[in-house]
Amino acid sequence: MYKAYIISTGTELMLGSTIDSNSVFIAEQLGVAGIKVVGKSTVGDSVEYIRTAFEMGLNMANIVISSGGLGPTSDDLTKEVACEVLGCEMITVDEEVKRLEDFFRRRERQMPGCNLKQAMFPRQAKILKNSRGTAPGMYLKKDNKVIVLLPGPPREMQNMFLNEVEPLLKNDFPAIDIIARKTIKVLGPGESQVEDLLGDLMHGSKEYSLALLAKDGEVHIKITAEGKNLEHSKKILEKIANQIAEKMGRNIFGLDEDRLEAIAGSLILSQEKTLALAESCTGGLLAKMITDIPGSSKYFWGSVTAYSNEAKMIFLGVSDITLKQYGAVSSETADEMARGILGKSGANIGMAVTGIAGPEGVSDEKPVGLVYIALADAHSCSVKEMRFVGERDAVRILAAKSALDLLRRYLIYGGL
Amino acid sequence: MYKAYIISTGTELMLGSTIDSNSVFIAEQLGVAGIKVVGKSTVGDSVEYIRTAFEMGLNMANIVISSGGLGPTSDDLTKEVACEVLGCEMITVDEEVKRLEDFFRRRERQMPGCNLKQAMFPRQAKILKNSRGTAPGMYLKKDNKVIVLLPGPPREMQNMFLNEVEPLLKNDFPAIDIIARKTIKVLGPGESQVEDLLGDLMHGSKEYSLALLAKDGEVHIKITAEGKNLEHSKKILEKIANQIAEKMGRNIFGLDEDRLEAIAGSLILSQEKTLALAESCTGGLLAKMITDIPGSSKYFWGSVTAYSNEAKMIFLGVSDITLKQYGAVSSETADEMARGILGKSGANIGMAVTGIAGPEGVSDEKPVGLVYIALADAHSCSVKEMRFVGERDAVRILAAKSALDLLRRYLIYGGL
Repeated sequence: MYKAYIISTGTELMLGSTIDSNSVFIAEQLGVAGIKVVGKSTVGDSVEYIRTAFEMGLNMANIVISSGGLGPTSDDLTKEVACEVLGCEMITVDEEVKRLEDFFRRRERQMPGCNLKQAMFPRQAKILKNSRGTAPGMYLKKDNKVIVLLPGPPREMQNMFLNEVEPLLKNDFPAIDIIARKTIKVLGPGESQVEDLLGDLMHGSKEYSLALLAKDGEVHIKITAEGKNLEHSKKILEKIANQIAEKMGRNIFGLDEDRLEAIAGSLILSQEKTLALAESCTGGLLAKMITDIPGSSKYFWGSVTAYSNEAKMIFLGVSDITLKQYGAVSSETADEMARGILGKSGANIGMAVTGIAGPEGVSDEKPVGLVYIALADAHSCSVKEMRFVGERDAVRILAAKSALDLLRRYLIYGGL
Repeated sequence: MYKAYIISTGTELMLGSTIDSNSVFIAEQLGVAGIKVVGKSTVGDSVEYIRTAFEMGLNMANIVISSGGLGPTSDDLTKEVACEVLGCEMITVDEEVKRLEDFFRRRERQMPGCNLKQAMFPRQAKILKNSRGTAPGMYLKKDNKVIVLLPGPPREMQNMFLNEVEPLLKNDFPAIDIIARKTIKVLGPGESQVEDLLGDLMHGSKEYSLALLAKDGEVHIKITAEGKNLEHSKKILEKIANQIAEKMGRNIFGLDEDRLEAIAGSLILSQEKTLALAESCTGGLLAKMITDIPGSSKYFWGSVTAYSNEAKMIFLGVSDITLKQYGAVSSETADEMARGILGKSGANIGMAVTGIAGPEGVSDEKPVGLVYIALADAHSCSVKEMRFVGERDAVRILAAKSALDLLRRYLIYGGL
């Protein structure tokens, strides 16, 4: 499999406030093209560090792609350093000089002398047009390695990558699409539980590899398969995916780009049901997630964020006896909240979430992370007690995600 | 000046879809501490590449800080590789084993055997507490170099860096920093308007520089001042900050780490008022933002996400005539929503947001981005019409932020 290394140069990238979006874009594009990114390096505008980065890249990968440092000023050094590392001499390219002069003439501006260095390239380099700026890029093949230099401004870089670089890469690295990929997304078991469940599958083989990514309670199982050809890779992928599906069962909520809130939404819609919510500890987050999905107004009736006990009583009809006797964070209150919103709204499904997000309202029997999720329909109401690990933000997100997942399980399997 | 190198590990960072926010955070913190970041490296979970990154970092900088790869699973390799590069043998630390066992016992879960490796460290290492997860970090000084290993999840990493790492770095690398920094945060004018308002100030001088960062409707004006010494730098900073304050006036909502939702919250609290919300297009996002703040239950009564017209009528008493005559997205409906939630809740302030987030419900006279925000109190109700540029997510965020800012202006200046 072809390996790529990405370099981003620019002192501003060292300051924190600027995010290196270029390497993210390039990595995405290479991934689609089936080229594996093995590393990234970000360095300031220093000859020494840029050199080290290119040396590191060339010894780790077949393809080294850099962005930034192609401008006219004295701290734009990438091209010079890259050529030095490759041992390529640079010459002035007349058409490029002419292009630059035209560029400035059309803008009725005098070309600063320093811009001339943008017209210098190694003889064997392919010069990449920059339709959005003055800095051309460069594509250089030497000793079965390829070095690609792109400008730093994202608009210029992206445009040049898609129009100029991608076709060249496709041509020089024809084997690029024999890799098959799939992501299986589960909610329920934690990352280490998923690894235990997958057992030996985790270790992969010459033909496939697995990577786990845990995020906001979800665990994403990323499968990469590489066989003799794309067909073969897809066969391998499907085989592994099926084995994983067996082990993960109902915990799987989606694949690849699927989002839990969209999955739950499309299930409600396809069953021609409507949903109403009563939120306490999640404070609107659950409604926000559901309405993140365009068209959610077709199945989302609305919700009450009953942050105070008063709101629970007035809008949801929770009895003050229940609140006094069991407290706002209790199975009983969750039950009354869900039944309450179901009754008031006339929706088909009423869901309620109440819990301790912390740091306040904590006690020994009611620790941070204790959450009750209730789901009521015309026939019954079930409540699930959950205990999440983490602080306020984490507990709120985990509670909302779990509520969405319980909704999904209810709609598919008819129970929490 | 001390030099630092930042390493981020994790195969998911190679795929493009995940942005490496950790290195941005760490670079920002080091900058404040007066430590210069000379390079960053991002590598997948591969022994060879992680090793190369640490070798590169150690030869470029005094301080190497990595995040990721401290988890329990077999692709978490950072600690093992770092110790190998440094030539440090690892031993099992009993207190850490105990801590892990407690962690799982408290959660009534069985500890997977693979978690045990999280209790292994070099003898001379300082173990960094992780109050938000199972993976401890490590701070290791050897041959006047320092290696810091942090967990990958941003919340765990940030917490550990601020509480554990910063004091150690301050002690080992006493800041010789004479730079003074301040961020002024405004909401209202866009980035280019702010630039125009600041005029010549933007160009800076030998002694100070300004940088603008626009995010979710906020514009952050970052001031950096460098004088003969820290005192002098602070003098310069204050002078510039005052000039900016004059030009920005009421648009300034906070400084440095201030968050708009916290500012608004503390204003309500200090005025001993309570707030209730009625949301339509923001779908719970505004309530979510307000309840992001710990202790918001002291002043937040609750909210209704009236996504359907039915919900607007039942929970807020919006009249069906108003809805028919003016539509759900209208000044009149916003007004009735705000008065409605004020009346039902008995809170001191009732706010309502209704608008077109798109892509659906759009018409010529009601385009995407048209939003009405209403604020009602015992005396009156005022409505503001706003037109935001962007797609669904952007419109929702801008609407919620603007509502928070209108609330702030109302509480300070007594009007929208």
